[in-house]
Amino acid sequence: MINKLVEKIKKTGAPIVVGLDPMLNYIPQHIQDQAFAEYGETLEGAAEAIWKFNKEIVDKTYDLIPAVKPQIAMYEQFGVPGLEAFKKTVDYCKSKDLVVIGDIKRGDIGSTSAAYAVGHLGKAKVGGKEYVPFDEDFVTVNPYLGSDGVKPFVEVCKEEKKGLFILVKTSNPSSGEFQDRLIDGRPLYELVGEKVAEWGADCMGNEYSYIGAVVGATYPEMGRELRKIMPKSYILVPGYGAQGGRGKDLVHFFNEDGLGAIVNSSRGIIAAYKQEAYAKFGEENFSDASRAAVEDMIADISGALGGK
Amino acid sequence: MINKLVEKIKKTGAPIVVGLDPMLNYIPQHIQDQAFAEYGETLEGAAEAIWKFNKEIVDKTYDLIPAVKPQIAMYEQFGVPGLEAFKKTVDYCKSKDLVVIGDIKRGDIGSTSAAYAVGHLGKAKVGGKEYVPFDEDFVTVNPYLGSDGVKPFVEVCKEEKKGLFILVKTSNPSSGEFQDRLIDGRPLYELVGEKVAEWGADCMGNEYSYIGAVVGATYPEMGRELRKIMPKSYILVPGYGAQGGRGKDLVHFFNEDGLGAIVNSSRGIIAAYKQEAYAKFGEENFSDASRAAVEDMIADISGALGGK
Repeated sequence: MINKLVEKIKKTGAPIVVGLDPMLNYIPQHIQDQAFAEYGETLEGAAEAIWKFNKEIVDKTYDLIPAVKPQIAMYEQFGVPGLEAFKKTVDYCKSKDLVVIGDIKRGDIGSTSAAYAVGHLGKAKVGGKEYVPFDEDFVTVNPYLGSDGVKPFVEVCKEEKKGLFILVKTSNPSSGEFQDRLIDGRPLYELVGEKVAEWGADCMGNEYSYIGAVVGATYPEMGRELRKIMPKSYILVPGYGAQGGRGKDLVHFFNEDGLGAIVNSSRGIIAAYKQEAYAKFGEENFSDASRAAVEDMIADISGALGGK
Repeated sequence: MINKLVEKIKKTGAPIVVGLDPMLNYIPQHIQDQAFAEYGETLEGAAEAIWKFNKEIVDKTYDLIPAVKPQIAMYEQFGVPGLEAFKKTVDYCKSKDLVVIGDIKRGDIGSTSAAYAVGHLGKAKVGGKEYVPFDEDFVTVNPYLGSDGVKPFVEVCKEEKKGLFILVKTSNPSSGEFQDRLIDGRPLYELVGEKVAEWGADCMGNEYSYIGAVVGATYPEMGRELRKIMPKSYILVPGYGAQGGRGKDLVHFFNEDGLGAIVNSSRGIIAAYKQEAYAKFGEENFSDASRAAVEDMIADISGALGGK
């Protein structure tokens, strides 16, 4: 799957991923109204609004982008119906040949991580049959429990030709509280980065490992160091746009080949119609605003990468 | 909710929690057969088997115990039907007046943690209405992202009178890989423990804070130190039984009042019928084996606490 991701990035010229993180207040009123007319103001109604919103954005952007990243929390907050919308979104994006990164940030002791890996990347055995419960291509994983919490995910990735992005340095303001603390003179996130390189070493695709890392756009200097520590790991970079990152800050997340990183924007794309720059499209045409925002993001990052 | 937990622990004399972590291979054949006869060998069939299994164990043990801890991964591995069984289990346990600790180990950047908090502890707003999506009483939270990943959970707990157990030192063999690393001469888990005490300071119930911690039974000496660092935090202690912890190892997780900790056993209770000690019950009577295992666990821990 890392090979497919790299190929699609080369083909689209777009090292970006659209974060499908639909808050209800991002969803235009007419879509909410339609969904509530059919299902009432219920969890099912909310889930339907999310699904319709996602579908329209995917339909308007899938030819420009290699990948999407649905954030499962935004679905899980609406309970079981929300998780049905998550599954529908994953399946629909795959039908459009997009690489799907499930932003699930799971991680637990070994047997429990194994269950998460089955649920999101693998196959569940029931009697003599097998099913793919959620079926993302990549998922994000939290490393706080150490190797034996991560390895069950790695094992399933090997079997299924899928991949991981492991949290190394997150984009949020307080990520430094534990991640930046010095251990033998070096920040914790560097030690986690070294582990990512180690876990990924025998998980190589053609050019890159399918065990990648998450490093926030909001910490470009740390991105530069981590790029060196994990030369073969793809870096998923959240925090572009709404969280403050800009194309010029991101060049050091990439390798000299212009590859090695994929930058996520969520709100900046899916709720673009709410920004002054895209207000001209109007709420009805929110997905055209999203398409324009994708084009602008690609131009911003390509421009910054310049000679690379 | 921490007051209810403490009250129920005092009333039952059982500082224990039954982990409802149903692997399909723990579930007796007759229950699987019934479920598959109705739903086929499908995800729905697996979910039905899990639900029936849980219900029978809860029916046979609820009068002895204060709380249950369903591990959501074991449900999530069966996709949307599995998560329906999770919800049914939570709701049923609450109808039996059990305190429900959702072992979800979520944690993300602020707005995303807020969505998880809504989904598991709070209320989702849809138009003019409100719903409780999963409705656990407590959840476990991963602290790797720092304060702003934890605080949205704390805020919802304040509103809803619910609570958290934050991962400090986990029970798995490689938990030391990052958690034990020394920062200014002290292990990371102690710094996380200090933060738990800080986050919990303005979240007091009558005797204890509703912001608690997870510390594995497999690391009793660390439990002793962490007990001192977080005197007002309840400690959820996984790793008893199958993972190797025993009652005598656990005394230092408790305060002098004999309170302050609640010990989880999953496999050791729900799959007790597979152990030699309880084989006499037979597979058909698996829930009687579970009841006997609960009684033995209470005796082991009460005995170890002795004078406390």
